[in-house]
Amino acid sequence: MSEIRLSTNPYKGTRDFYPTDMRLRNWFFGKIRSTLLASCFDEYGGPMLESLDLYIAKSGEELAGEQTYNFEDRGHRRMAIRPEMTPTVARMVAGKIGELNFPLRWFSIPNMYRCENPQRGRLREFWQVNVDIFGCDTYEADLETIVSAVRLLTAFGADSSMFTVHISNRRFFNDVVSSIADTDIEGCRKISKIIDKRKKIPREVYENELKALSMTDEQIATLDSLYTATVEQATALCPDSVGSAELLHLFEMLKKIGLSDYCCFDFGIIRGLDYYTGTVFEVFDNAPENNRAMFGGGRYDNLVGLFVKNAKVSGVGYGMGDVTLENFLFTHNLVPAELCEKKVLITRFADVPYEAYMSVSDKLYALGVTASVYLGVKKFGKQIDYAAKENYSHVIIMGGDELAANSVKIKNLATREEKTVALDTLTADDFN
Amino acid sequence: MSEIRLSTNPYKGTRDFYPTDMRLRNWFFGKIRSTLLASCFDEYGGPMLESLDLYIAKSGEELAGEQTYNFEDRGHRRMAIRPEMTPTVARMVAGKIGELNFPLRWFSIPNMYRCENPQRGRLREFWQVNVDIFGCDTYEADLETIVSAVRLLTAFGADSSMFTVHISNRRFFNDVVSSIADTDIEGCRKISKIIDKRKKIPREVYENELKALSMTDEQIATLDSLYTATVEQATALCPDSVGSAELLHLFEMLKKIGLSDYCCFDFGIIRGLDYYTGTVFEVFDNAPENNRAMFGGGRYDNLVGLFVKNAKVSGVGYGMGDVTLENFLFTHNLVPAELCEKKVLITRFADVPYEAYMSVSDKLYALGVTASVYLGVKKFGKQIDYAAKENYSHVIIMGGDELAANSVKIKNLATREEKTVALDTLTADDFN
Repeated sequence: MSEIRLSTNPYKGTRDFYPTDMRLRNWFFGKIRSTLLASCFDEYGGPMLESLDLYIAKSGEELAGEQTYNFEDRGHRRMAIRPEMTPTVARMVAGKIGELNFPLRWFSIPNMYRCENPQRGRLREFWQVNVDIFGCDTYEADLETIVSAVRLLTAFGADSSMFTVHISNRRFFNDVVSSIADTDIEGCRKISKIIDKRKKIPREVYENELKALSMTDEQIATLDSLYTATVEQATALCPDSVGSAELLHLFEMLKKIGLSDYCCFDFGIIRGLDYYTGTVFEVFDNAPENNRAMFGGGRYDNLVGLFVKNAKVSGVGYGMGDVTLENFLFTHNLVPAELCEKKVLITRFADVPYEAYMSVSDKLYALGVTASVYLGVKKFGKQIDYAAKENYSHVIIMGGDELAANSVKIKNLATREEKTVALDTLTADDFN
Repeated sequence: MSEIRLSTNPYKGTRDFYPTDMRLRNWFFGKIRSTLLASCFDEYGGPMLESLDLYIAKSGEELAGEQTYNFEDRGHRRMAIRPEMTPTVARMVAGKIGELNFPLRWFSIPNMYRCENPQRGRLREFWQVNVDIFGCDTYEADLETIVSAVRLLTAFGADSSMFTVHISNRRFFNDVVSSIADTDIEGCRKISKIIDKRKKIPREVYENELKALSMTDEQIATLDSLYTATVEQATALCPDSVGSAELLHLFEMLKKIGLSDYCCFDFGIIRGLDYYTGTVFEVFDNAPENNRAMFGGGRYDNLVGLFVKNAKVSGVGYGMGDVTLENFLFTHNLVPAELCEKKVLITRFADVPYEAYMSVSDKLYALGVTASVYLGVKKFGKQIDYAAKENYSHVIIMGGDELAANSVKIKNLATREEKTVALDTLTADDFN
């Protein structure tokens, strides 16, 4: 063996999940899964590798090549590790478009890779909850998608003081901006890029860029008024727009189903308008120290176009990263102190044969009690130390006397209470 | 957009998991997870990408390069998509060797990639259940590892007629083969390679290869006798071997804890002896049409050597692929016909406002009943068709009359029974 030792660090931007980390992840993915299943969303999955062409077709050669880990396989196919799930799910929907029973309510929790420098909240390997409704062209899908996002967060105990769904509409955006700036759809697109980055650039740069697109001070001031406008005020600027009608109806429905406290209109929500075609939204963390968009989504109209000619399947959905969710849960103290279930360590004494302990272990397994026999023959005190460090809730003590009496002592490590129970009468309740 | 349409097929050797496939996977991984957790195994996880050096250090430049998907990242690091989990877990254990509370009982269910031509039971992307006990040098870990493998399969309803754990021991192998063939450890290694492939080569080739290693006809006959020997007969050939003592003790313990029916001695179990150092085992499917090793594992002594100097951590464990398990479950009819849970479709009528249906949906969500409102406004018959195709167990019918009476009709789609229930008194039991 070589004398050079390998590094024990995980690859930059990726994480090791030791049991404590994994328990946290399993806890929150478990909650997400059960919440979505309870709302009749079906889980799907797809491969980690896809043809690079899928991402090129969606995002262009340059972006796809830059943002993905990609390589040639031995058959000279250009493959990429998936950086997002939408192209995969689009391929899957297109592949069975004649068999699937639309509308679909689908979700997935895949791991994926982005080739970028890691920073707070953005890693190279991450998991992303993807929730979509496919094949429903009417407002119900928009509404249900928002409902599912609210349910996901409230399932963890979050309330409307902790997060807000900021909502806008792409059709409305185009109509109101073309009316204010007296421009066409291409002009709207250019303005949207400036609006999208406005919080990251100085006000002066923002204004100059808008002026370079021939906007006047007055027009810029009207645009400004939209950032703080209510949905009624905003849509009044453009009363005949289909987007205005969609927005007003969505907010009316949100009110009727009791979600007003969780939602607000926000003209500044852009989300790469080239892709979305109707409702767009972002879910914000309301904590002052963490105030920013956690995740978002919206409606897009042509999911399967790259695969199937003359077929249209619309989608409304969102993607939520695991790192963002974890930050949110910790910020708002929504992670329980103890994620371990009740579990029992069966301690050992040298004068009792191992098979007697294994028999207790089998008995507990049959009763549905999580348990294991201590592996090894260390002193009793060391075994108790092991149990405490590994978060065992109870220990079983069976020395020669207990074995002879066909009984065990059960010790609750939290309360330090001990009791002796006959093995024949042992039940799961003995470990409460 | 280009006129060229992309393929809807997944990459060769990988799979799409549509909801029906995913339910199956979630069902069997869920059972595996809960069975292992019930035996106090802790789940861990690691990144999909690792330094290629990890696999080179374990398997050599050629094998690692050939079997993995690997590429250079932008920092000129040679990365590989993991083809197995052992190097990752070795790195993780080495990285926290001073903090971890040994012995560890760990498991993981990662996806991984192997660069090879797909064939029955072997795909390019697969999932593998990895179960290991680290840091226990005595027989208990071997025993518990075998117990966990038996529990995994019996949790699905498998019994001893369906599978058998074939067990051997590397120390015993070396001792008995060096005694029979009068050779050294390197000679044993060469003979092990021939034994390992004996079922895939003609008898004549097998004999000629052994003779090329200077084995006589008589020695080959003695070797032959071992393939059908009981553990007592086999160990009698080599009574002073530590491996013999280990094997006899392990089988004695298996008998004492009631696992004899699940286990047998099998001298032919090799599993790349270069890596394993004690107990080795393979779990066989007993079905005549599928009779072969499903998965296996064993004891190895130096897990962290590549990472930490002068530290030794032993391991006993096994890895089980998802495709193999799935084949086994289907072969023995262990997959339930229906994996869907109870779920309710709330059908819609045009004269009832949508928010009234959403309110029923919220009520059911609060009651813990899986439910969703039909998305769209198709005729009632179409909605029922949708419910049937998507495996809904019940539908709720609320027309104008029911709305006025503040009640709903519940229809059980399997029994076709209908009942009317006041909304205020609705409970989860109404959907039994």
